[in-house]
Amino acid sequence: MARDSRYDVLFEPVRIGPVTAPNRFYQVPHASGMTNALPRVRAAFREAKAEGGWGVICTGACSIDPSSDDAPLPMATMWDRNDIRAHALMTEAVHRHGALAGVELWHGGASVMNRASRLPPLSPSGIPWMATHVGFMGNLRPRSMDKADIRDVLRWQADGARKARTAGFDIVYVYAGMGYLGYEFLLPEYNHRTDEYGGSIENRVRFVREMLEVTRDAVGKDCGVALRVSLEELHGRPGTHQPSEAHELVALLSDHADLFDVKMDSSPTDCSASRFTGEGSHEPVIDFVKKMTDKPVVGVGRFTSPDTMVSQIRRGVLDFIGGARPSIADPFLPNKIRDGRIEEIRECIGCNICISSWHDGVPVRCTQNPTAGEEWRRGWHPERVAPARKREKVLIVGGGPAGLECALTTARQGHEVTLAEAGSAWGGRLAFERTLPGLAAWNRVVDYRLGRLNEMTNVSMYLESTLGVDEIIDLAPDHLVLATGARWTRMLYSSMEIPVGTLDGPEVYTPDDIAAGRLPQGPTLVFDFDNYYHGGVLTEHLAAQGIDVTYVTPAGQASAWTIMTNELPLVHQALSRRKVPVRTLQILKEFDGETATLAHLFTGEQTKLACRSVLIVGLRAPRGQLKDALDTRLADLETAGIGSVTVIGDALAPGAIAHAVHSGHLAARELGQGGRKPYLRDTPITDREPGFAPAEAAE
Amino acid sequence: MARDSRYDVLFEPVRIGPVTAPNRFYQVPHASGMTNALPRVRAAFREAKAEGGWGVICTGACSIDPSSDDAPLPMATMWDRNDIRAHALMTEAVHRHGALAGVELWHGGASVMNRASRLPPLSPSGIPWMATHVGFMGNLRPRSMDKADIRDVLRWQADGARKARTAGFDIVYVYAGMGYLGYEFLLPEYNHRTDEYGGSIENRVRFVREMLEVTRDAVGKDCGVALRVSLEELHGRPGTHQPSEAHELVALLSDHADLFDVKMDSSPTDCSASRFTGEGSHEPVIDFVKKMTDKPVVGVGRFTSPDTMVSQIRRGVLDFIGGARPSIADPFLPNKIRDGRIEEIRECIGCNICISSWHDGVPVRCTQNPTAGEEWRRGWHPERVAPARKREKVLIVGGGPAGLECALTTARQGHEVTLAEAGSAWGGRLAFERTLPGLAAWNRVVDYRLGRLNEMTNVSMYLESTLGVDEIIDLAPDHLVLATGARWTRMLYSSMEIPVGTLDGPEVYTPDDIAAGRLPQGPTLVFDFDNYYHGGVLTEHLAAQGIDVTYVTPAGQASAWTIMTNELPLVHQALSRRKVPVRTLQILKEFDGETATLAHLFTGEQTKLACRSVLIVGLRAPRGQLKDALDTRLADLETAGIGSVTVIGDALAPGAIAHAVHSGHLAARELGQGGRKPYLRDTPITDREPGFAPAEAAE
Repeated sequence: MARDSRYDVLFEPVRIGPVTAPNRFYQVPHASGMTNALPRVRAAFREAKAEGGWGVICTGACSIDPSSDDAPLPMATMWDRNDIRAHALMTEAVHRHGALAGVELWHGGASVMNRASRLPPLSPSGIPWMATHVGFMGNLRPRSMDKADIRDVLRWQADGARKARTAGFDIVYVYAGMGYLGYEFLLPEYNHRTDEYGGSIENRVRFVREMLEVTRDAVGKDCGVALRVSLEELHGRPGTHQPSEAHELVALLSDHADLFDVKMDSSPTDCSASRFTGEGSHEPVIDFVKKMTDKPVVGVGRFTSPDTMVSQIRRGVLDFIGGARPSIADPFLPNKIRDGRIEEIRECIGCNICISSWHDGVPVRCTQNPTAGEEWRRGWHPERVAPARKREKVLIVGGGPAGLECALTTARQGHEVTLAEAGSAWGGRLAFERTLPGLAAWNRVVDYRLGRLNEMTNVSMYLESTLGVDEIIDLAPDHLVLATGARWTRMLYSSMEIPVGTLDGPEVYTPDDIAAGRLPQGPTLVFDFDNYYHGGVLTEHLAAQGIDVTYVTPAGQASAWTIMTNELPLVHQALSRRKVPVRTLQILKEFDGETATLAHLFTGEQTKLACRSVLIVGLRAPRGQLKDALDTRLADLETAGIGSVTVIGDALAPGAIAHAVHSGHLAARELGQGGRKPYLRDTPITDREPGFAPAEAAE
Repeated sequence: MARDSRYDVLFEPVRIGPVTAPNRFYQVPHASGMTNALPRVRAAFREAKAEGGWGVICTGACSIDPSSDDAPLPMATMWDRNDIRAHALMTEAVHRHGALAGVELWHGGASVMNRASRLPPLSPSGIPWMATHVGFMGNLRPRSMDKADIRDVLRWQADGARKARTAGFDIVYVYAGMGYLGYEFLLPEYNHRTDEYGGSIENRVRFVREMLEVTRDAVGKDCGVALRVSLEELHGRPGTHQPSEAHELVALLSDHADLFDVKMDSSPTDCSASRFTGEGSHEPVIDFVKKMTDKPVVGVGRFTSPDTMVSQIRRGVLDFIGGARPSIADPFLPNKIRDGRIEEIRECIGCNICISSWHDGVPVRCTQNPTAGEEWRRGWHPERVAPARKREKVLIVGGGPAGLECALTTARQGHEVTLAEAGSAWGGRLAFERTLPGLAAWNRVVDYRLGRLNEMTNVSMYLESTLGVDEIIDLAPDHLVLATGARWTRMLYSSMEIPVGTLDGPEVYTPDDIAAGRLPQGPTLVFDFDNYYHGGVLTEHLAAQGIDVTYVTPAGQASAWTIMTNELPLVHQALSRRKVPVRTLQILKEFDGETATLAHLFTGEQTKLACRSVLIVGLRAPRGQLKDALDTRLADLETAGIGSVTVIGDALAPGAIAHAVHSGHLAARELGQGGRKPYLRDTPITDREPGFAPAEAAE
């Protein structure tokens, strides 16, 4: 199919200083969680996007010196010659597909704790970030930089830029965002300096300007020099000569950068979840930038619609369509637009499992794209799968995320696929969850797969089709895949986090009851120790229907794990809007139909709460009846020629939707291969490696 | 000095199956945070203890398969031939000093989230650990193991044991503790199986027994087979034939293990902080084991006193004095006892900064021993320091942890050291902090250093000696070190974690006021956003003096960061005993002398609290007046021949005591060398490494 000509503008080349991007699709710097410890994993992850048509591919934050050490949070480094070689794997991979490679050189300033390097962190005035989340807390506050320290950082930036050029990068960043060192100079709250680096906005901008100058002096002839800057706070502060300090910053730095990469100030606003924030949310803060500079501007906003992208360009908001999450969910998004295959785009659902991976300190995962991070170690391509050596009959029982993904991937292999779902709608758990407040976009997991499956001639799909053992034996597939999902239990846990039996009773509900439309009666206590989104969103759902709900959890916050997905503050705000009391650090001990007995997690102090119903959002268990029944008929299965039985998704190990999709994909890739396949282990580039040319790193 | 003969028993050799430990000092498996990614760092860290006289040196948890993947928490691996070579660096280093090397082979079962390997975790019955702390939460629940899975784990254990033997280990562990896979089989709450692995204690022990059997079959001729088992829960459960299920376990497994390594079930009870728990706290749970088996028994209890150690042996509690924390604080503890240098022991203070390092996902740090983890990358020996090429005059201003450590290390280099303290006692912040509830043992930081300094003839020490610029110029040292500490500020932060000015007023206190004996009047609000121990312990201190205190914090728990040091539940319990209300997720907005205005961290909802005083436990800032004054007299310093001025400890960058001691040590090691010295970066062993002999890994 040919591309609609209105999208042509997206495929125009754009100059960035001395280099030219082949189109307007720009994968902005984003964390991969891979670090220089996994250089081949990282190169393959970034390469997939270049192959898929992104015109610029950047690294995540890349430390220029051991005084910027974010361990255990993942980060890249550009400290020594091994680092150069590790990054070169990525730039070579990106260049193979005609894209530009950018590097986000970075100094974390007071935001890093230098837990591994053990050096005192640096800052303009010794003012730390005082985190309220334990995962981000440290005990070492930063020291104040003197003039020699400023010279050091400028030298590290210039050295880093030269190393980056040696590694093959085309675009080199100066980073002044997200609470890191450059940003700390910009904000008077962090910058109390009385010298030429503090005070007026001209002075506060000086350090960032000098960082740009040394970068341009070092590599400006060969590389585009990009400024990445957070503008949210500065945009809210009136300027002296301009409407805001953000305006003044752009005016002051316009001649010093080849590109403006503009963003918000904190992860929850910069990379907000679709549950609470729509596409293009940055626009009101950053739309002034292009009006003030003739340099190209890139920004993000979880753009997945080509019409929205074109609108951003036509209306003069952006020159480049920045993508982080959408580029992970679909590395081939640009090529699909280019080739008129819009409906094939695997749209980001905005669940932020990707950013949770970074917070978790591990390589990036994606709900929509199970191949993310698996390109090298498992050899998984995001779009292609090897054709099956033999076309076989595959029966998949269960049409939720795992079953749909498994069906799509086995169908792409050329198998004859039958997908049977007992319910009246596709999507499994999503059939209900997509109806909950804010979760509509998550149904893209279902829509994308259903859309592709409906185009295929080797797939038969049946709703309202409950299969028992006899039916399965009659169907006699070569391979049977069970994706029957999980159910919620009424199990409770002790304060030692050990299970202590189930809470039974007529007015004790689980999320499955709510999904089935059985609403609790009277004042209801939601007891959440699942701690991801279910407890919070189900509480919203009940409150929206006029039920008087109290939310109780043993964790320190409501939906505590959603700090990982940048949602936590917004969950609390949503509950507050619904007038839901939130009680933390409590476990549920007893419920007699009228009163719930709570105990403080640590002290055991008991309190009573009058309520008529309890909803337990805790532990899920696989729906295993079919598997158990099949296990008693193994001889019959063999006689029927059923060569393998594989359990996937929540039916194997209840998890997030990302786990289910990955599980379904894995099962398809390994179909009929008999047991677990190993994956490759990546290792850093070392001095002891033959074939390393030290001359390369002579800088 | 000769050793007291009553300690001779500690130096007897003890057999462990086919191998013999040279003495009774046994460094039990403990996390180093170093992982196979830092094999030389790890080998040198472990070697220091072998050199210091520990007879057995073990690894930390060492995964036998990618289905046991604790990322981002640090762990060792024994998966492939590169792992064998990485561990061999450690066994060779340990053997050089005549010690045995042990490896804690490990499968985490349901306790790991397999965030990097992305495999479903394994468990007896699909029952997960439902963590209430975000850092330990995951969303992927374990799957239930079938018989094939059990065979797989047994095979991985046997393979792991053979790899361990190839790597040079003398002792190979089966691990059934701390919530990990073997432990989950032992507890009926996690083990709901109806086959021969579930039900009776005989059945629940079966998996662990089989793990021992396959290990012994694989390597039992060459290696001692150790069982590490948590007995706390089982000890509390009545047995059928024995007083408890723990007794029954020992009876059932006595013939199958060459050594019992016995411990508690959770990190807070197994490795409890000195603030709440004394030396030898495991004894009431584990003292029965030796009575039930003729195999040697090792246990821990933060033993630092040789008399306590001898008592454990003489009373038949233990055969080996297990050490984890004391071996980090003083790798040379055994040799010091052997040589009659008891007073030179650098005693563990039980602050648990070491375990916090593991929770933080980084290599181990120690308050008492700044060289821990720095042996290889900085070349720091825990006991020896290179003599100075030239004896110079070093003046150190400030006798807190940083100053004392710097004085001791420069004195050991042979310099002529003067240490001047303005206060009337040594210890800096510890002079007050050691008087707070539970913190007396922390004064060992001061005692150890004062004791050594008092023995030296090249050190002059002065209390109540306030030095100004003129006095310093008159003293004309070759090197000046400033260790003047930090003061607490009245700064507040916004809900966006940005500083928003200070809260001033007559009844606004800081911890410095409390240290100076100025007690708040009337009902007092303690507002803690430091989140380590100060807020909690100062609240205890005020409440103990009859002050009506309310504790308020923006974090989700009181002293939230103390989850890292295993103290959090006990902090809450201590506050509860003192009848202190705890209010979490609140920031302090205003205080007018009668009412404090609080706002919910996420929703902004305001509440009022009547109080007469506020104690802010928040941000510290360096005491920088002397440095500032010196900076105005640089020419005079030069004329006086003062070659270097170095700021260390809290005066440079306020931190925990561990940071101060490390800072003081670093300054001494780098004295007069002009600026920061780089450290070596370690890298894993890879296939691409020359000199690697694949035949070694032929198993």
